[in-house]
Amino acid sequence: ALALALALTASGAPLHAQAAAEASPVGENMPPLYADEFARARAFVGEMMEAGVVVPQPRDPGGGYTHEQHKRNYRAILLAGQLYRITGDRPYADYVREMLLAYADLYPTLGEHPARSNQYSGRLFWQVLNDAVWLVHAVQGYAEIRDTLTAADRERIDSRVFRPAAHFLSVESQSTFDRIHNHATWATAGVGMTGYLLGDRDMVDRALLGSDKSGEAGFLRQTELLFSPDGYYAEGPYYQRYALMPFMVFADAIARNDPDRRIFEHRDGILLKALRTTVQLTYGGYFFPFNDAMKDKSLRTEELYHGIAIAYAQTRDPALLSIAQMQDRTVLTPAGQLVAADLAAGRAEPFPFRSMLLRDGPQGEQGAVAILREGEGPRHTALVAKNSSQGMGHGHFDKLSWQLYDNGHEIVRDYGAARFLNIEAKQGGRYLPENETWAKQTVAHNALVVDRRSHFDGKVKPASAVAPEQLHFSDEPGLQVTSARVDGAYTGVGIVRTLVMADVPGLESPVVFDLVTAESDAPHSYDLPLHYQGAVIELGFPVESHVAARPVLGEDHGYQHVWVDATGRPDAGDGALTWLLDGRFYTYRFATDGATQAILGQVGANDPEFNLRREPLILLRREGAGGTTFATLLESHGRYDGAAEQTVASRSRVAAMRHHRQGGKDIVVLTLKDGGQVALAVSHDADPAARHRATIDGQQLAWTGFAAIVEIGRGGN
Amino acid sequence: ALALALALTASGAPLHAQAAAEASPVGENMPPLYADEFARARAFVGEMMEAGVVVPQPRDPGGGYTHEQHKRNYRAILLAGQLYRITGDRPYADYVREMLLAYADLYPTLGEHPARSNQYSGRLFWQVLNDAVWLVHAVQGYAEIRDTLTAADRERIDSRVFRPAAHFLSVESQSTFDRIHNHATWATAGVGMTGYLLGDRDMVDRALLGSDKSGEAGFLRQTELLFSPDGYYAEGPYYQRYALMPFMVFADAIARNDPDRRIFEHRDGILLKALRTTVQLTYGGYFFPFNDAMKDKSLRTEELYHGIAIAYAQTRDPALLSIAQMQDRTVLTPAGQLVAADLAAGRAEPFPFRSMLLRDGPQGEQGAVAILREGEGPRHTALVAKNSSQGMGHGHFDKLSWQLYDNGHEIVRDYGAARFLNIEAKQGGRYLPENETWAKQTVAHNALVVDRRSHFDGKVKPASAVAPEQLHFSDEPGLQVTSARVDGAYTGVGIVRTLVMADVPGLESPVVFDLVTAESDAPHSYDLPLHYQGAVIELGFPVESHVAARPVLGEDHGYQHVWVDATGRPDAGDGALTWLLDGRFYTYRFATDGATQAILGQVGANDPEFNLRREPLILLRREGAGGTTFATLLESHGRYDGAAEQTVASRSRVAAMRHHRQGGKDIVVLTLKDGGQVALAVSHDADPAARHRATIDGQQLAWTGFAAIVEIGRGGN
Ligand SMILES: [Zn+2]
Ligand SMILES: [Zn+2]
Repeated sequence: ALALALALTASGAPLHAQAAAEASPVGENMPPLYADEFARARAFVGEMMEAGVVVPQPRDPGGGYTHEQHKRNYRAILLAGQLYRITGDRPYADYVREMLLAYADLYPTLGEHPARSNQYSGRLFWQVLNDAVWLVHAVQGYAEIRDTLTAADRERIDSRVFRPAAHFLSVESQSTFDRIHNHATWATAGVGMTGYLLGDRDMVDRALLGSDKSGEAGFLRQTELLFSPDGYYAEGPYYQRYALMPFMVFADAIARNDPDRRIFEHRDGILLKALRTTVQLTYGGYFFPFNDAMKDKSLRTEELYHGIAIAYAQTRDPALLSIAQMQDRTVLTPAGQLVAADLAAGRAEPFPFRSMLLRDGPQGEQGAVAILREGEGPRHTALVAKNSSQGMGHGHFDKLSWQLYDNGHEIVRDYGAARFLNIEAKQGGRYLPENETWAKQTVAHNALVVDRRSHFDGKVKPASAVAPEQLHFSDEPGLQVTSARVDGAYTGVGIVRTLVMADVPGLESPVVFDLVTAESDAPHSYDLPLHYQGAVIELGFPVESHVAARPVLGEDHGYQHVWVDATGRPDAGDGALTWLLDGRFYTYRFATDGATQAILGQVGANDPEFNLRREPLILLRREGAGGTTFATLLESHGRYDGAAEQTVASRSRVAAMRHHRQGGKDIVVLTLKDGGQVALAVSHDADPAARHRATIDGQQLAWTGFAAIVEIGRGGN
Repeated sequence: ALALALALTASGAPLHAQAAAEASPVGENMPPLYADEFARARAFVGEMMEAGVVVPQPRDPGGGYTHEQHKRNYRAILLAGQLYRITGDRPYADYVREMLLAYADLYPTLGEHPARSNQYSGRLFWQVLNDAVWLVHAVQGYAEIRDTLTAADRERIDSRVFRPAAHFLSVESQSTFDRIHNHATWATAGVGMTGYLLGDRDMVDRALLGSDKSGEAGFLRQTELLFSPDGYYAEGPYYQRYALMPFMVFADAIARNDPDRRIFEHRDGILLKALRTTVQLTYGGYFFPFNDAMKDKSLRTEELYHGIAIAYAQTRDPALLSIAQMQDRTVLTPAGQLVAADLAAGRAEPFPFRSMLLRDGPQGEQGAVAILREGEGPRHTALVAKNSSQGMGHGHFDKLSWQLYDNGHEIVRDYGAARFLNIEAKQGGRYLPENETWAKQTVAHNALVVDRRSHFDGKVKPASAVAPEQLHFSDEPGLQVTSARVDGAYTGVGIVRTLVMADVPGLESPVVFDLVTAESDAPHSYDLPLHYQGAVIELGFPVESHVAARPVLGEDHGYQHVWVDATGRPDAGDGALTWLLDGRFYTYRFATDGATQAILGQVGANDPEFNLRREPLILLRREGAGGTTFATLLESHGRYDGAAEQTVASRSRVAAMRHHRQGGKDIVVLTLKDGGQVALAVSHDADPAARHRATIDGQQLAWTGFAAIVEIGRGGN
């Protein structure tokens, strides 16, 4: 038998015999995490076996009964196979056999799925992707028990389930199979692993190299094109997590069956790099919700249990053990057993979350995602700047958008996808119409909107042709910087955004400065939304409130989904909004020459089906200028402890903020309430040795490099 | 010295000598919880001592600097005194001395507080209540070190701080002092404990028996009038928690100084009963937010650390240890040390949360609070029916309102108070105007509103003159019932509400039936709001949506704060709304003859200061009827697991619901999706042996007692 199961070492011996011997008497000597997994699998498979083999005629879309039953079935096939390997108990093998024989009856009779919603129909499921996922799981379970079958059963299952399933995915669905896309990764993984199991070299080669075996498509090409050199996946972290499973599982099979390919060293170890990058793209275990992401997705997800185990078996990196510990899960493979054993032996070390620049694009040439972190542990501060490429069809029109996490929460938020995954009553669990009309639109992000239209007019094709340019990145402690520019999001308007996470004397650390410059000769309307969360505590400027009838902000490009609560136009100087979230205060302050309008709103207009979350935002608006620069400061401060009835520093420590732009340099001067003055000075010059000067209100400022915090001292007035 | 500190036994020996001997070498033999408390106190007092004695001229309202500093000071006086008792370290005693000498300089110079907002001004604080709290703490700290002072210092502190403070509270503020109210409890506790310490019997007697020593006011009378025979405090759990501290602390001092009073046996042990009732009035540790309650208040609160320790020392009830364990805190008294020691010895047992009826009123004659619980642990289901009296000035107009908790969350919610306690920017931390205009109003509750006006027209005086009558209560497992009526909330309209938490065959357990009957001969408009939380998943009837301009529900009585999202009028039969909260689905279903309007809304209109939380509600409306009965069902079902991408039973199992009212009996018939029929039959006859019949659609239903679940069997149509 070909060793398809996830082994630690390439070995000719059937894996199940080896593992069964090691684990006997069953369960007794297992490390706790593995024993839990074993018990969980036994409970699940036991229930499934008790219910008998149920292989229904495909009918329902995602979330519906037949969809969920076929999902349960592939889990049962995989886990029963693994349980057979571990225990040697024949009923597990017989159950997999019966299940697969039932599929052998059904599968050849299937045509297009009745609930298909697009051209990519599956056989068992409404979309071909789910069929590929089915195969990736089922073939692993089948591999564990195939040796136990009679030749006739084996032939029947091979020829009526696995060969036609692989044929369906690789030949009948060739256009999907040969894409450079995660759907194709699942398909090539399923087909390739089936090829290894059935000893079908042609199948393997098509999976590895594409249908025409040219290497222009297929799994290997996917590892080269779908990840950037820094292991970033263009669709974003949510899809990166999902895509990783077939990458890791198939790579593991390749390593064992084609060891000479050195798949884990391929392209400078890109797969292991991608695994680590996936972990870096989280806060509190949850993925940064770029693009069409479900926000409840965390590292605690099936796909990553596999990924962590395989990566740990390859690297023995103790930091991966702490991720397994946090997941509190592993997989029923020898790699999973190793993870559990080393965890039990106390070998885990903290995962090194850190500031980093993740270039996007196959050659790292399509912008980047910048992550700035300060502090440690679950309440540390993390800033994410999304200066990356469009990320294909699930991409959002959010160029140069950012997010901030602090104190364990999303502070400056990304909406994620408008979707209730697997909930039938919500359009069968599919993306909701509001995913297009709201979630993808620029105004739904912390991104600059010009003329109230989304970037690239909300069109994927032109958006995919352009990527931002990362101008500068610095992870210097106390003064971390990311700066990027994008051209083409709007005709004739270049946008440069510089985010600085800094420790500023006199303020609690860190604070975030945000400088957004639109370069244009023509008049435009500029809107800069900030999506926050929390209770509004203080509004530092007068507003006109729409208290008795609530108008809508606009008619399209997402504006139709925003209720307007209040609008104000602070006098020249600055305006500020303070909110409270989980005991921490945040003040968002913007400089203004008197012409900036601030609009306070809430999501939820034109939402008759209640599909949207009713979240607040503040939007800064400037009309008619040629170019403009928005300069804002986000200051976190104080503590509110409801239990102890203690409140500290509920008010901002900033008395005034002014923005000056001189010869392409930006200077933001803060006057603190204690009278001190301090400035952020940005030269926009990446040369770290270059010296810069500016004169503000008669005072000379001098600094070196791209950006600096300059103490001006006590105000002399 | 009088033994004022919280001793376990009445003892003539100075407590600090005894305790210091026991604890030496300091900290080494302390049980962990006490050691933590000791370390925490040392850190806090250490910081305070390092900062030096700071006793500022009173200036600020709640949350402001001087307010917070005087709060810190009384904590420091208490804790430094206790640390001196434990360690015998002289600097702690000296610090208390210096602090109190500073107060001796300041106190006699004080007049009315400059930030007073009502007639009850304090000296150190903006309201007299805070001054009483200061005294209760400070006198305990003073008691620990008074023996160490020179006669001159002692005389100066006695005569310039404690005597005038007691005089201010009991004589100058006599109207507060002689009230039957929790503010008076703090005042009498502070004055009485000062009396014990200074050996001033007159002061003690005035505290115990009221200014005129008649017993018509004062502490003892408060224990008789402020708690019901079941230990319920009329203002509600939030105030009960707050009131308990002076009750327990002063009672502890009485027990030691006047043991013959047998204070803890007074009125059938009312104080210990009240302590246990306070714990029962929680879910997940948080108090049911009746009346002007802050929702972030839990059992983890200073007041209850004292209460639990004192009660445990009196009773040795091991269930109280599990509350201390959950609080993870105790107090630096011998009682606290005992709690910590017995906890460390593994003596804790689970606190017996259970269904119970808590009568309200000094004689239990003013209605009741009914608590129905099913299941155990942090995710159990709890229903609370508030059929109690008005609860004085902090009472809300919420007669017969209810709340539901499930799966660790508030499902059917009470808004609590509109207030940001201690947050200066929010009106100095005081109650917001919206507390009157929204939080207190009937429509802000899950209570019947007649003619769009609040109960008693929103007036405290007539509301206080009337209490509901608890008609029935049953905690029979699987069929728990509370029924109550109120007359006088509206002229000519009697309201009866029956809530049944039942296990119904074919449905997940438990479900809640709600029957609200308005009895009237005249035409009225009836509104029944339900305040839920979660994402709307399915609306079982057509609605007209206000998608592009959002109107306000009304003009006053809280209606001015509700935005209207959509309205619908389902055909005769039933209407349903399903929402999702933390992985659990809830369907609220109402029977209708076709004339019930359902209004979906959100709180937040007419809220220019963003003082309100933007929460959703559904409001059922019937116009013009004489009397009417609303029959609704709240069904929790299924599971959504975003991490595992698994969804189960996202849709209600009920196909149809009909309500029949026959001769004063209510029958609610559910037809399940599997075809089965089951009815809730309510006779409203409290006789448990009485047999009842009804005929529904030609079928005979028979049952015994107040209410029953009757299986009708498979539908025969
Ligand atoms: Zn997005
Ligand atoms: Zn209330």
